[in-house]
Amino acid sequence: MVKHSIIALAEHAASRASRVIPPVKLAYKNMLKDPSPKYKPFKAPKMSSRQWPDNQITKAPRWLSTDLRDGNQSLPDPMSVEQKKEYFHKLVNIGFKEIEVSFPSASQTDFDFTRYAVENAPDDVSIQCLVQSREHLIKRTVEALSGAKRATIHTYLATSDMFREIVFNMSREEAISKAVEATKLVRKLTKDDPSQQATRWTYEFSPECFSDTPGEFAVEICEAVKNAWEPTEENPIIFNLPATVEVASPNIYADQIEYFSTHITEREKVCISTHCHNDRGCGVAATELGILAGADRVEGCLFGNGERTGNVDLVTVAMNMYTHGVPPKLDFSDLTSVLDVVERCNKIPVSQRAPYGGDLVVCAFSGSHQDAIKKGFNVQNKKRARGETQWRIPYLPLDPKDIGRDYEAVIRVNSQSGKGGAAWVILRSLGLDLPRNMQIEFSSTVQDSADSLGRELKSDEISKLFKEAYNYNDEQYQSISLVNYNVEKFGTERRVFTGQVKIDDQIVDIEGTGNGPISSLVDALSNLLNVRFAVANYTEHSLGSGSATQAASYIHLSYRRNADNEKAYKWGVGVSEDVGDSSVRAIFATINNIIHSGDVSIPSVADAKAENKSAAASGSA
Amino acid sequence: MVKHSIIALAEHAASRASRVIPPVKLAYKNMLKDPSPKYKPFKAPKMSSRQWPDNQITKAPRWLSTDLRDGNQSLPDPMSVEQKKEYFHKLVNIGFKEIEVSFPSASQTDFDFTRYAVENAPDDVSIQCLVQSREHLIKRTVEALSGAKRATIHTYLATSDMFREIVFNMSREEAISKAVEATKLVRKLTKDDPSQQATRWTYEFSPECFSDTPGEFAVEICEAVKNAWEPTEENPIIFNLPATVEVASPNIYADQIEYFSTHITEREKVCISTHCHNDRGCGVAATELGILAGADRVEGCLFGNGERTGNVDLVTVAMNMYTHGVPPKLDFSDLTSVLDVVERCNKIPVSQRAPYGGDLVVCAFSGSHQDAIKKGFNVQNKKRARGETQWRIPYLPLDPKDIGRDYEAVIRVNSQSGKGGAAWVILRSLGLDLPRNMQIEFSSTVQDSADSLGRELKSDEISKLFKEAYNYNDEQYQSISLVNYNVEKFGTERRVFTGQVKIDDQIVDIEGTGNGPISSLVDALSNLLNVRFAVANYTEHSLGSGSATQAASYIHLSYRRNADNEKAYKWGVGVSEDVGDSSVRAIFATINNIIHSGDVSIPSVADAKAENKSAAASGSA
Repeated sequence: MVKHSIIALAEHAASRASRVIPPVKLAYKNMLKDPSPKYKPFKAPKMSSRQWPDNQITKAPRWLSTDLRDGNQSLPDPMSVEQKKEYFHKLVNIGFKEIEVSFPSASQTDFDFTRYAVENAPDDVSIQCLVQSREHLIKRTVEALSGAKRATIHTYLATSDMFREIVFNMSREEAISKAVEATKLVRKLTKDDPSQQATRWTYEFSPECFSDTPGEFAVEICEAVKNAWEPTEENPIIFNLPATVEVASPNIYADQIEYFSTHITEREKVCISTHCHNDRGCGVAATELGILAGADRVEGCLFGNGERTGNVDLVTVAMNMYTHGVPPKLDFSDLTSVLDVVERCNKIPVSQRAPYGGDLVVCAFSGSHQDAIKKGFNVQNKKRARGETQWRIPYLPLDPKDIGRDYEAVIRVNSQSGKGGAAWVILRSLGLDLPRNMQIEFSSTVQDSADSLGRELKSDEISKLFKEAYNYNDEQYQSISLVNYNVEKFGTERRVFTGQVKIDDQIVDIEGTGNGPISSLVDALSNLLNVRFAVANYTEHSLGSGSATQAASYIHLSYRRNADNEKAYKWGVGVSEDVGDSSVRAIFATINNIIHSGDVSIPSVADAKAENKSAAASGSA
Repeated sequence: MVKHSIIALAEHAASRASRVIPPVKLAYKNMLKDPSPKYKPFKAPKMSSRQWPDNQITKAPRWLSTDLRDGNQSLPDPMSVEQKKEYFHKLVNIGFKEIEVSFPSASQTDFDFTRYAVENAPDDVSIQCLVQSREHLIKRTVEALSGAKRATIHTYLATSDMFREIVFNMSREEAISKAVEATKLVRKLTKDDPSQQATRWTYEFSPECFSDTPGEFAVEICEAVKNAWEPTEENPIIFNLPATVEVASPNIYADQIEYFSTHITEREKVCISTHCHNDRGCGVAATELGILAGADRVEGCLFGNGERTGNVDLVTVAMNMYTHGVPPKLDFSDLTSVLDVVERCNKIPVSQRAPYGGDLVVCAFSGSHQDAIKKGFNVQNKKRARGETQWRIPYLPLDPKDIGRDYEAVIRVNSQSGKGGAAWVILRSLGLDLPRNMQIEFSSTVQDSADSLGRELKSDEISKLFKEAYNYNDEQYQSISLVNYNVEKFGTERRVFTGQVKIDDQIVDIEGTGNGPISSLVDALSNLLNVRFAVANYTEHSLGSGSATQAASYIHLSYRRNADNEKAYKWGVGVSEDVGDSSVRAIFATINNIIHSGDVSIPSVADAKAENKSAAASGSA
């Protein structure tokens, strides 16, 4: 990950540097103070009534993928034929029932690929092609789709003032008659042609750019087209209402859709489709508000590929439905494989922060977020045990497992992370659920390390840090080790610990008393080292399950340092199949940590023996 | 660019492959058919009235950059101190007057950087710090900000049911009293402390996560906080209403903001701030609809950095205002330098399709888009000459020059491009404005080349293709060259061309007649080559301006091929300071093209001489 972003960045910077950037007149004044004379506010239509803000999305729309057409045409390096085929099959697998595959009248490659799609599509998938409203191009397009089980011919025409005037120099009347003429031709060549009856022909018409077209004219031209096509309720005509360029905020697009939806006649024979681009960063919002406003169908691309800022990202729109309890009817449960196909074929990386698909989007770096997520999982695990199913984790609106991501990636640790992140990693990697104060202590170790490295720490680096800091498992600091021991019970409150430890390869007897095995061992070690240790915290929990269950014990000892007699604390952890044994291990790990730190020095063996004898003598007194 | 995306992709794929992805239970059914039991629809508040959909954004909000806090904390590799400093100064230069720089109570590094910001901020910039509602942390934060001209203390508290219950285990009453207590402490340590009067202290409170908090409770806790702080109209209290996690569609967020804005008392002493994350891909929309609904202030990061999917992208929100004629009061006119700082410090590349900032967002690859843009520039140039200033280019909602991008990058050419793209490149690189039919012919040459290379063609590759295809400038095909010539005029309609050409280093006389110099030269060459050439199209235009003006001539000749007598056409182009000379050059370029193609073979010098003598004889008869 780290390497990826840095290399990508270097390449990126290099590519930018190689762009020739001419000296331009900077627009400071217009951005900071005076309105630019180049731009005017968008003139929003006045709405006499408005229903959409009170609506909710309760079912999935019809989906159209235009990845292979609008998406592919905008790639610096368009897909090869093999890549198109792979992409097509992936779309089918995800569950798309309508796929715009090409502009077959534009090139032989597109024509040939259309034939491939026609011949390889499942029966319930409609193959869609885009074509200009011109006779010879329409004929070629019908030819390309001939023999399909389901096919959609998609024509378009300039209807916005700007497009009509600048691009086509066409009046409104000319536009209407051209649209009607094209529609009649498509009709003649498809559903009215006796030789074409094996195909279920659907017709789609796009007034371009709808979001910049006066509402009443959009309705007027679509009425004329509808009359020319004569759709049925079973096979409605598709009016695609594109925000070819996003020119206003998404609520205005919704107003426009609602106006159209409530003014077009024979609404039941009409399928309203959205086709949103993302120039203002609101493609997803426009699509969703469009659905609230009456749209039945959504066009877009996976991860938002397409001209300029891209088409709307269908993954986000679908998954937004999923996380609100609406089955999207597209399957993104193996999102990693979708990412793989899309990135390989498009050759444009999906942003690390892209909703759902980005590498970083199920990750939390901040300490308070990490803490909250950890608590959320704990609460949820308890609720699950009671049969409650709802997903309710702070900062994680989606269960990462639903899209094939795992929990390891959820919490990541950098120098800004708090205790929760590192603790989570230790829980996932070593199974140890650290006590709160131990989390705090360990997190500062981790923070120091991340700070000095100046980067994120990986899971295994954090585990290694933990093992070193707490002398865990590796037993690298073994100044004193236990050889054998016995705890004798005297009544209910008194225990006597007797045992032998090894120091410098010599055996030394130790003995101590307390009200339990832990305190009596701590007393024995206090006697040995001539430092009074006290148990500040003791915690244990089970580790693993079934026959492999172990116990993990955490001990927090307080003591005074040899050097300055200041009070100090240290943690240690021990794991064993036997819970008594695990606490003994924890104590020895802690004591060895303390010795290793230099806070307490180990006595010479002779001193220790002498010391211990006198302690034992007083103990037995 | 090409290299960038492929390498980034390879690295990306490698990083993904190295992630350990455990086998997960796929959720097909829940995505395709049955609602997942994990998720419920968002319960939107019922609105008794709703004003925001009728509003418009008419002025810039107050902006807060949280790049150095929320942004930095979520980076896999957080910024170094030097990078933070550079970033901070860039934010000041862009025009930010409120900058959240840190969480100073969390680490010494953050504390030290806060001191740097305090000491280096202009007088009109408020330095903001985030702090939990806890006494010792608040004290440390005030200490960090001490001496600033303007400072904002930002506290937060869990108010949503989920956060209160899972993370803090706190009742509503406890939350209110904790918030009030923290506010009173901040007040005591800042504006009420006589030693702190050199600073203009502002207070910000965030009920978390507002977007998931019942509206009436958000108002209730903020009322209590407001009473504890006692803000003034001159220095209002900031209520930041975060969508810490984006949990619903942006219209619902706007409803929540409008509810808050219309229910909080002393509205004039309150500054409502938005803080939108992007989990559902609607951060920009939520922010914009939030402003419509009454928000006065916007928090976010440049290019949408921040936890998970990021905070809202402030560049997009600001530039959306700019393109609607509202000065955003942030200066992004040198966006490339902003990108440079952000990418270098964050070490996360900005997506190639990110609005405004992405490399591809002012580019058009599709032929029809390229065509339309070219026409748009032509129309606009004419309108500019008449003093009209409005920007009105199809598919380009923003003048790329306004953000320091140039027009070269606007139109790019891949195998999906039509004639317009390649023609644009030739216009920009060679100054040649190709006739329409020549554009069509050349675009198929370009398409073939892009198809066979399987990638985008660069500007210089397209120029090279053009020069080769039309024998332009390089004169690499020079089977016949003109040595000298004379055109004699007989009356108004008859011209006789006499000249000498060089073939195989030998000089041959040629002669022809016509109604003008072009037709008489074509006649002479027809005689020479024994093939009847006719002028199908002749176009010329000036090139450059002032004393360096040249003429460019385009000639389209029709003829019949030697081999099969089929009709064929070829284009040629000639440039010269003399318009007559440029047309002669164009004709020779075309003829040499035809010979090079093999359509017409060159006669042996002896034949040519003989042929020409008889033609000259008949011509003079």
